[in-house]
Amino acid sequence: MHKGLIVQKFGGSSVANVARIQNVARRVVSYKKKGCALVVVVSALGDTTDELIELANKINPEPSEREMDMLLSTGEQISVALLAMAIHKLGFEAISFTGAQVGIITDTSHTRARIIKINADKIKEELRKGRIVIVAGFQGVTLNQDITTLGRGGSDLTAVALAKELEASACEIYTDVEGIYTTDPRIEPKARKIAQITYEEMLEMASLGAQVMQARSIEVAKKFNVPIHVRSSFSEKPGTLIIKEVKRMEDVVVTGVTLNRNEAKFTICNVPDRPGVAAKIFKELSSGGINVDMIVQNVSHTRQTDISFTVNKTNTAKTMRIVKQAASKIGAGDILEDRDIARVSVVGVGMKSHPGVAATMFGALAKNKINIEMISTSDISISCIIQKKFAQEAVRALHEKFGLAK
Amino acid sequence: MHKGLIVQKFGGSSVANVARIQNVARRVVSYKKKGCALVVVVSALGDTTDELIELANKINPEPSEREMDMLLSTGEQISVALLAMAIHKLGFEAISFTGAQVGIITDTSHTRARIIKINADKIKEELRKGRIVIVAGFQGVTLNQDITTLGRGGSDLTAVALAKELEASACEIYTDVEGIYTTDPRIEPKARKIAQITYEEMLEMASLGAQVMQARSIEVAKKFNVPIHVRSSFSEKPGTLIIKEVKRMEDVVVTGVTLNRNEAKFTICNVPDRPGVAAKIFKELSSGGINVDMIVQNVSHTRQTDISFTVNKTNTAKTMRIVKQAASKIGAGDILEDRDIARVSVVGVGMKSHPGVAATMFGALAKNKINIEMISTSDISISCIIQKKFAQEAVRALHEKFGLAK
Repeated sequence: MHKGLIVQKFGGSSVANVARIQNVARRVVSYKKKGCALVVVVSALGDTTDELIELANKINPEPSEREMDMLLSTGEQISVALLAMAIHKLGFEAISFTGAQVGIITDTSHTRARIIKINADKIKEELRKGRIVIVAGFQGVTLNQDITTLGRGGSDLTAVALAKELEASACEIYTDVEGIYTTDPRIEPKARKIAQITYEEMLEMASLGAQVMQARSIEVAKKFNVPIHVRSSFSEKPGTLIIKEVKRMEDVVVTGVTLNRNEAKFTICNVPDRPGVAAKIFKELSSGGINVDMIVQNVSHTRQTDISFTVNKTNTAKTMRIVKQAASKIGAGDILEDRDIARVSVVGVGMKSHPGVAATMFGALAKNKINIEMISTSDISISCIIQKKFAQEAVRALHEKFGLAK
Repeated sequence: MHKGLIVQKFGGSSVANVARIQNVARRVVSYKKKGCALVVVVSALGDTTDELIELANKINPEPSEREMDMLLSTGEQISVALLAMAIHKLGFEAISFTGAQVGIITDTSHTRARIIKINADKIKEELRKGRIVIVAGFQGVTLNQDITTLGRGGSDLTAVALAKELEASACEIYTDVEGIYTTDPRIEPKARKIAQITYEEMLEMASLGAQVMQARSIEVAKKFNVPIHVRSSFSEKPGTLIIKEVKRMEDVVVTGVTLNRNEAKFTICNVPDRPGVAAKIFKELSSGGINVDMIVQNVSHTRQTDISFTVNKTNTAKTMRIVKQAASKIGAGDILEDRDIARVSVVGVGMKSHPGVAATMFGALAKNKINIEMISTSDISISCIIQKKFAQEAVRALHEKFGLAK
């Protein structure tokens, strides 16, 4: 471990304008003054990435992924150059690099590339010179020198991967909220900042709707045991530590409540109850590029059953087309689509050793007269599909029931 | 020479918005349909470069040149990606590259780098695959992988250098005017498009105020004898050919009239007429980074003389400071500054073999009661400094006198 080396990542909202870039520069320099060695990863300014995507779509609604990466990678390149200039203005040495320049080598899966290796020699050399090293997040380069990007939220991955490669003593993810909360504070004002959370819980929360950090970057942090500190770039307060194991004073069963309103539910009625029939349907969806989330099939007492599943709302038209074809092939009945649903989930490693969490959850919802339409569980989470109009009420009820309030 | 290979360069105004990018795509594809192999060099969209410079200056009024290049090179990277997408939309294969990716190797003089060599293997490989190759203009990379830019108008240089390296059969510079004119059509509506012009004349016109092409790129074209076709991206009409030697039907003495209103005149009075005194003044200016343009010193009949010179208007304050110090050291008198001047010039290789051009020029100005304040001549040009209020009248009078009108 490189004692005193910190990797800091600043998201788009932290560098959205000149004043915020100057704010980031001051914060970085304040750590430099304390004697830290610094590698700073930056995202594109504010909504730059969305604006570039919009521009591209005007020219070609199905742009080549290679060219899309060529286009989008400019956003972070602008950020790093401006941050370097802002740091120079404060009288400190800094040097900016693109992903290609610091040897972030990826595979060739444009727009969602995976990092193969990092040749960190250049960064190490600049750190030895005492410089603050600024690296464009979200991007890499193939062995053939084509520019790639790492997918939405990819700057988090850049930061975690660099922290691992450089054996940094800390990886700080700066954002516009103060850390990870027990639930979305816009829904439940009593939501509390979580001081420490495990990788496992964070992964579950990210996949169930919490949007603070990219899930892939947490996976990498977990794999290499890189401690992450999620905190606000507008405040000095400590945020949330994401680490391997959390020693909690009390027995915490549920760590957080999440909500996802971006899913739609499909039900295929009267599916013949024979082996391989469900497989057929979901194979068709998968070859159509549709990611199916929750799947529920009840035990049948006749020779037919109903199968329900959820998909992201952006895919409903395509899903309906594929399912209709598949259903007619296998001789199933009607297909129902419901876009007015929400998934509410409770997450916590404590569940592993505390039975009865599901019963408590179902009870709390029942007490509020909220009907549960589908249930799915994992080792450390329980999710219920309910009608969307009850979503906020459900979140608040569960937050209260599991004692997460301030 | 690669028969049928054309290098086309499109300036910022040609790709200023989505519709114009689509227009460029259609034009490029129309050449591809004719069976040409194409390398397309593109500048940044519209005023992108100026906007980025402004942003940088807000953050740091004296930005590091390395970081400036990092920032500005994104402009062309955006253009090439969007143009590739627009060409794909028309059903043709195209691939975009940054200067670094196609191996445009430069020295380390950031913001005004010089091309050392081009490793064109990647371009050749893509051309063999039948693809349209799109290259970001204005930029290169050092051997240490730092991004560099080639100075204002550097995309012209990229195009000319690639045309030379690839032995292209043509190098077309597309712009928002139809070619090189006998003088600025905004000043003299009778200005005529010049069909052919020599490198020498074009260089002289560029250095005297004509702004269509970057002077350095013409120098390179001249050195390697790369024929250039300057033409409009909004019209199919032929533009102006810039070539080594022009066979003209008639004896043309003057090819064009140029005007430069961006200079200021300084006069140092009563300079002691001793060897080395003038040298001292101009050495100080040169070490201060001031580029002096025209210098005039009259023969003196006493032991004192007046020295006049012109500099770019942006440098007047600094020039005055340096000249004041120098003048007091050498014991010279007052210093006069005049910002209300203009330089009007006539250019033409025909002058070499036709005496009397100066007399004709002075006569035409005298006839219009325009006083000449300074005169300077080269092999193929004559320039006069006059009062700015007479500038347009002078241009029109000379344009008429030398028979350049339509």
